[in-house]
Amino acid sequence: MRQAPYKLYLPEDKLPTAWYNLRADMSNRPAPMLNPGTLRPLAPEEVYPLLVEELVRQEFDDETRYIDIPGPVVDYYKTYRPSPLCRAYHLEKALDTPAKIYYKFEGNNTSGSHKLNSAVAQTYYAKQQGLQKLSTETGAGQWGTAMAMACAYFGVDLRVYMVKVSYRQKPYRKAVMETYGAGVIASPSEQTQAGRAILARHPDTDGSLGCAISEAIEAAVGTDSCRYVLGSVMNHVLLHQSVIGIEARTAMEMLDEYPDVIIGCAGGGSNLGGLMSVYLTDKLTGRASPRFVAVEPLSCPSLTRGRFAYDFGDTAHLTPLVKMYTLGCEYMPHPNHAGGLRYHGMNPVLSQLYHDGVLEARAVGQRSVFEAAALFAAHETILPAPESSHAVRAAIAEALRCRETGERKTILFGLSGTGYFDMTAYGSYLDGTMTDHEPTDEDLAPALAALPKVD
Amino acid sequence: MRQAPYKLYLPEDKLPTAWYNLRADMSNRPAPMLNPGTLRPLAPEEVYPLLVEELVRQEFDDETRYIDIPGPVVDYYKTYRPSPLCRAYHLEKALDTPAKIYYKFEGNNTSGSHKLNSAVAQTYYAKQQGLQKLSTETGAGQWGTAMAMACAYFGVDLRVYMVKVSYRQKPYRKAVMETYGAGVIASPSEQTQAGRAILARHPDTDGSLGCAISEAIEAAVGTDSCRYVLGSVMNHVLLHQSVIGIEARTAMEMLDEYPDVIIGCAGGGSNLGGLMSVYLTDKLTGRASPRFVAVEPLSCPSLTRGRFAYDFGDTAHLTPLVKMYTLGCEYMPHPNHAGGLRYHGMNPVLSQLYHDGVLEARAVGQRSVFEAAALFAAHETILPAPESSHAVRAAIAEALRCRETGERKTILFGLSGTGYFDMTAYGSYLDGTMTDHEPTDEDLAPALAALPKVD
Repeated sequence: MRQAPYKLYLPEDKLPTAWYNLRADMSNRPAPMLNPGTLRPLAPEEVYPLLVEELVRQEFDDETRYIDIPGPVVDYYKTYRPSPLCRAYHLEKALDTPAKIYYKFEGNNTSGSHKLNSAVAQTYYAKQQGLQKLSTETGAGQWGTAMAMACAYFGVDLRVYMVKVSYRQKPYRKAVMETYGAGVIASPSEQTQAGRAILARHPDTDGSLGCAISEAIEAAVGTDSCRYVLGSVMNHVLLHQSVIGIEARTAMEMLDEYPDVIIGCAGGGSNLGGLMSVYLTDKLTGRASPRFVAVEPLSCPSLTRGRFAYDFGDTAHLTPLVKMYTLGCEYMPHPNHAGGLRYHGMNPVLSQLYHDGVLEARAVGQRSVFEAAALFAAHETILPAPESSHAVRAAIAEALRCRETGERKTILFGLSGTGYFDMTAYGSYLDGTMTDHEPTDEDLAPALAALPKVD
Repeated sequence: MRQAPYKLYLPEDKLPTAWYNLRADMSNRPAPMLNPGTLRPLAPEEVYPLLVEELVRQEFDDETRYIDIPGPVVDYYKTYRPSPLCRAYHLEKALDTPAKIYYKFEGNNTSGSHKLNSAVAQTYYAKQQGLQKLSTETGAGQWGTAMAMACAYFGVDLRVYMVKVSYRQKPYRKAVMETYGAGVIASPSEQTQAGRAILARHPDTDGSLGCAISEAIEAAVGTDSCRYVLGSVMNHVLLHQSVIGIEARTAMEMLDEYPDVIIGCAGGGSNLGGLMSVYLTDKLTGRASPRFVAVEPLSCPSLTRGRFAYDFGDTAHLTPLVKMYTLGCEYMPHPNHAGGLRYHGMNPVLSQLYHDGVLEARAVGQRSVFEAAALFAAHETILPAPESSHAVRAAIAEALRCRETGERKTILFGLSGTGYFDMTAYGSYLDGTMTDHEPTDEDLAPALAALPKVD
């Protein structure tokens, strides 16, 4: 076995040329999306007024195992990929663990996260369809930045509805998007019916991802030239993110390494889904049995405390119904929650895998997440995003268990992004004002009770 | 010749194990530093109360061509190096130029710039000397962040005097430094004599790098446990930055490429000096004749309009006298200057090379710099630091000249960092409030007239 370097960058000729569609290898596939009016499975054509057509086809494609990455998307990928597979030698030493810790670092691009992998693909297909404009939402800002970068490159207009609390707390994120030519609107806004309705009920609201989605959808539906794009949850997003796992596996194989456990933070699930994708088939076919661990915030525990049910993707009920683990589309995390991963639902593929016992999940408090982040930053030198730090937290816990048991496990986790724009959250951790909020059953009850009645 | 990939990362076993000390190859070496009291050349020991001893030895070493990089520094380098050598295919296409544009990108680390290359080395030597504490200044924040990262890793306390205007405009930078455990003080402060003196004369001052240096020096001098470190201008910093050029040359040679012109932004000069270092010897020995171009801001034109004279490094006259191109240590750029590179002087090696006609220099207006930055960002997808964008501006100008002449030149420039924390400056460019200020001769006269009388 070759000694692992600190950072392994694949040569350009080993970069993926096709995405891996893990649904093709699942025996229990995710349930179909439903039309909320008829409660019948949607036909792809029904979604064309909302979404880019090729993305809809990918969303519905449960059969094609490998889907070619278009040439112009590959050309864009080459401006920031490969992302490095990193061996955490310094962290291992600090933890005094026999475990080998690897992480796939997706933060080395201006969006600061893995989101760009899907933004490039989505924008390319929109351009191919002749669309002039796209609308989307952004919470922490990574997705909006990624879309702004892709749209600047391909020459497509972009309107971003940015969750109001982020809009206020992250003026730099807004400025980056504007530098790439995007229009950025604080959500809820007065520009849409959905926004006005929420403002009428909650004039002082900080906004939510569900609400921003509603506004972005409304801006697209009923137009000829504009469609809506989103950066997580959907299966086509998971598909594009498979580049993470394909690169990771190629690099691990060059080192003759195979992970015992694969860990990722999970908000909508695309980062974890992308990382674990090419290893899943081993597990489903019995060739190997890596563990897969989703890490979510205690404040927004969709897998560990949500219900596996049909729900809307947005608060205004403009999306199709999706079968997933959900806290209910009206659920809002406690205002003091600063760790990201605020979405109420989870990608349908990951939801199904969790339901089938293939995927594990755990919820962690944000103070322990930032504690892990600071430790990681000091030793591995990278300042991780709060979201990614959930995975750091769980990877450290695994490594410490190995110290107890003496096992020399191989841990692979996804370091999905950097925290440079999340310093308000780091600040509240450092000054001690950050708290943990584990919602009570009573806190969760209203949004769960409001789930649509389908079955 | 192998087709250049978009990004070329050297394998770990080709990373530099020694720094290159370009002074060893110069026939006209930089003039010695002087003791400002006696006006006689300084002995190394005279500077030990101020600076880390090994760094002083490196500062005075004009003879040793290669200096081994200590193992722990190499281990740290491996957490973020190699930096990629990038081929700007997309920018070339956008410019419709026959030129081949390469850039060495140093922004893929949490400090966001090349500064970390020297911070790691300096902190290691301080730790070796048994020092418990370091003090330094930071302007835009990259150097302070780099020092905070290195000090967290090696376990050394750090106090950073941050130029007040940056302290106010870049709260995130401050928060990053604090996350890595550094203490950050807005300069001028009431904590030092130098700070109090400046506040007495200019209570509303935004601060300056020269003033922050004075405060950081005062915090170190006269203590046993603390020394002062700085991130540019000095020859030992240039030495550490030679890793940029060594890596770049190795990568270019793998592609069978040799640059016709090497371009870098120049504030204190360490980034350009590091990039061009290993090519300089070719020019000095007549083996090849690459052009070297320093790009500085119109608002702070130390090479193009300064004087080659002995000057202090700081406003309070606490440093030794250094022979360099300088605008005078009391010079302050116009308040509307947002493009970085604000230092009044230039590294002595680069100053000597400019004086000898080996290095070219040009000054550019900041609006044209940000225009180049936005073009670069859209096509190459990386958002460059304002400082680095000076080099982008000049590289684009070279490429456009090639379009006129049809020459297929090979351009290599230093993309020294990212602009994620500089969004206030980008904002003023985008909203049209940014202006260019070319100082008149009368503007420059007072600080030049105040230069110390040495010869």
